[in-house]
Amino acid sequence: MLKHKDLLGIENLTCDEILEILTTAESFQEVSSRPIKKVPALRGKTVINLFFEASTRTRTSFEIAGKRLSADVVNISSATSSVSKGETLIDTAKTLDAMAADCVVVRHAASGAPLTLSKLTKASIVNAGDGAHEHPTQALLDAYTIRQRKGRLDNLKIAIIGDITHSRVARSNLHLLTKFKSHVWLCSAPTLMPVEIAGMVRDNGSYLHLTHSMAEAVANADVIMMLRVQFERMSESFFPSVREYFRYYGLTRQRVETAKPDVIIMHPGPMNRGVEIASDVADGPYSVILDQVSSGVAVRMAILYLLLGAHGSSD
Amino acid sequence: MLKHKDLLGIENLTCDEILEILTTAESFQEVSSRPIKKVPALRGKTVINLFFEASTRTRTSFEIAGKRLSADVVNISSATSSVSKGETLIDTAKTLDAMAADCVVVRHAASGAPLTLSKLTKASIVNAGDGAHEHPTQALLDAYTIRQRKGRLDNLKIAIIGDITHSRVARSNLHLLTKFKSHVWLCSAPTLMPVEIAGMVRDNGSYLHLTHSMAEAVANADVIMMLRVQFERMSESFFPSVREYFRYYGLTRQRVETAKPDVIIMHPGPMNRGVEIASDVADGPYSVILDQVSSGVAVRMAILYLLLGAHGSSD
Amino acid sequence: MLKHKDLLGIENLTCDEILEILTTAESFQEVSSRPIKKVPALRGKTVINLFFEASTRTRTSFEIAGKRLSADVVNISSATSSVSKGETLIDTAKTLDAMAADCVVVRHAASGAPLTLSKLTKASIVNAGDGAHEHPTQALLDAYTIRQRKGRLDNLKIAIIGDITHSRVARSNLHLLTKFKSHVWLCSAPTLMPVEIAGMVRDNGSYLHLTHSMAEAVANADVIMMLRVQFERMSESFFPSVREYFRYYGLTRQRVETAKPDVIIMHPGPMNRGVEIASDVADGPYSVILDQVSSGVAVRMAILYLLLGAHGSSD
Repeated sequence: MLKHKDLLGIENLTCDEILEILTTAESFQEVSSRPIKKVPALRGKTVINLFFEASTRTRTSFEIAGKRLSADVVNISSATSSVSKGETLIDTAKTLDAMAADCVVVRHAASGAPLTLSKLTKASIVNAGDGAHEHPTQALLDAYTIRQRKGRLDNLKIAIIGDITHSRVARSNLHLLTKFKSHVWLCSAPTLMPVEIAGMVRDNGSYLHLTHSMAEAVANADVIMMLRVQFERMSESFFPSVREYFRYYGLTRQRVETAKPDVIIMHPGPMNRGVEIASDVADGPYSVILDQVSSGVAVRMAILYLLLGAHGSSD
Repeated sequence: MLKHKDLLGIENLTCDEILEILTTAESFQEVSSRPIKKVPALRGKTVINLFFEASTRTRTSFEIAGKRLSADVVNISSATSSVSKGETLIDTAKTLDAMAADCVVVRHAASGAPLTLSKLTKASIVNAGDGAHEHPTQALLDAYTIRQRKGRLDNLKIAIIGDITHSRVARSNLHLLTKFKSHVWLCSAPTLMPVEIAGMVRDNGSYLHLTHSMAEAVANADVIMMLRVQFERMSESFFPSVREYFRYYGLTRQRVETAKPDVIIMHPGPMNRGVEIASDVADGPYSVILDQVSSGVAVRMAILYLLLGAHGSSD
Repeated sequence: MLKHKDLLGIENLTCDEILEILTTAESFQEVSSRPIKKVPALRGKTVINLFFEASTRTRTSFEIAGKRLSADVVNISSATSSVSKGETLIDTAKTLDAMAADCVVVRHAASGAPLTLSKLTKASIVNAGDGAHEHPTQALLDAYTIRQRKGRLDNLKIAIIGDITHSRVARSNLHLLTKFKSHVWLCSAPTLMPVEIAGMVRDNGSYLHLTHSMAEAVANADVIMMLRVQFERMSESFFPSVREYFRYYGLTRQRVETAKPDVIIMHPGPMNRGVEIASDVADGPYSVILDQVSSGVAVRMAILYLLLGAHGSSD
């Protein structure tokens, strides 16, 4: 019973809406543990994965989520898309709408692309990552994982460390976690901290903190979220070398020990082992990185269900 | 109850066969407007999209059509195909036939490729565009759209404007529309008119007309079909510049006003806005371009159903 | 009731296990000949095709096999995979495991990759070709085809001719056929015979034979298996020219006449006609090359079923 047609970002969701998605996801988490991982909820619905940026993980997660709900899932990737023939993004979306797609899951390099599409389509638009803007399903699966482990989303110290400038994951997560009154510490090298961040700190009152010191971010943290160094997005060199990066902002066992004893370590994947995270930490006892992946399927099933299926046959 | 194993082109279909496809498509059009867009007609059938040329629109349309009929749909694109390993097209098709494919939807740069395959396979071959030869499902969805708006296919003035030389869409449409005794006006720059067109005019009696003047083609037209300028097919430069092209052969609001008051504007997509068609015309009140897309799913469902499913379990 | 979680190679299978797969495949062969080619055996199971090397034939065969068993099938190819973002193969596999994949069908350029993955996943791993190591489903479909034609797998003379060095097909086949006490004659140019082959001959007792003479290999053979010349795997030039290759190691009608009168000709495809096999032989009366393709779907259905579906709902 989400009141929205689309899921474009976390910024405009209420805490109640977020909790409804997470609660719905819990029941779908169980579906993926059954021998027959399939429910008929979205039979006869058409879900289109429209990915202008490659992403095995996110596309596969949405595809599995759709299929376990019995939807028909169609993949379109930029390599094979009409965009190479000069068609506009808007024409592509209106074309899919005319084919009676129920949902278009879109990943695009341009911030705001999903919003533009949502205004022009009857189909529900789900943002699977737009530029450096938002990646709402990632933040929701992160919240699902945190709540599973911590029992709550409020009153936590959460360190988000890495390439903040290029990270839509960081943006969506800080929107979500500060809504729930957890303290988010953004930590990065000065060259990887976005210029608009000062305004964001102002808007988020006392829940958003900035630091260039990893020691400060990690100290006493309940949750450490490492961001992927996105080599493919960096047009310039933002730091001298990988070794240098790891020394200042890589997560090692020694650093984990300064956090809370029950800290959890998160990473949206794919990981660059030895760059932003040490291998033994990624595979260690505090890591919930694979739980995030499992949560991802459940959360995406919940989102597709709430947008397409929860209205009964009168839809 | 099509008597053919395959759909290779419009040229060899009778008017009755065409009308049967269009009538069948009407019932499938309704399926795509239901909350549960799925019928079991082709359950347990295997439909293979074998695309040697990229085409999001056509491939997606066939994939959705197949899935809404409950067929299993498998996509093969040239990028991942064995053709890059030196296999012949014929061996690829015989391989798919040996896997008990029921239908192979094929797009290929060589005119006649689907015909060759049809002789060697038990599977039904559907031509999804072969070289500059035919694109029969496009002509059928265009006819569906015209009939929906005009109530008939005969006795209309239809202007087909643009790159006639490279257009299988133009060829399939002129075959279909002249069969029904509508008047087709082909209009293009002299460099974009195929040399064999004089023979086609002779064969089509008084229903096929040629002109280089857009004014003459559009005047009093019931239907204006704009063709896409296919930059990717042009090995040479056929006209001096895009601006020049638009000036002589682009569809503007002023030109539309010289057609019938209830004219409809069509385009097979993807559009080059500002090249062959002005944006305000593409999005304007006479445009049925998105109806064509909707019709496409219905017509392709009808074709798959008539070729694979209408024979009952004795198939 | 295979006791294994995975299918990694032929080397570690017993003759009984191989026969169980072949017998199960017989019942699935029948499914593909029905009007409704679908059984519900793997409904609600998730099968992932993870292909790091392109292969239309094998991927399509697994995809059709999975879909005819009602599994949800998801394709991941290297072009779109996270590997291009620096993720390790192991992380990719663990990610798919966390999404509750039931089976990952993997093709990879590195020998041993499937074995590595199998130790780290709950999902069943099926080797669809790893480097120059094994391609077990190919050997099983070859065995299925041989048994169909010859009524047995023992006491046959089988010539495997071509690029032995680069051929996982040859390796898997010689393991399988010598287990059943058939005589395998490996025949290639000296430059295309692997150095470790002497050890393999030692291990396989009196059932494995080497020759550089095609006349010797073919003489009185029950089965001739031609290997594809894998131009794309050869970093150097292993023979002077294609014409030279065909002259010494290409299969011609004249050569076939020196084999048993009921010889069968096999090729794993895709074929290089006129390189390793003459066109009239490929299409001739002794050829069972398209039977191999049909067998492939049945054998892959059997493997997916035995690994994922034969354990009932307590899986």
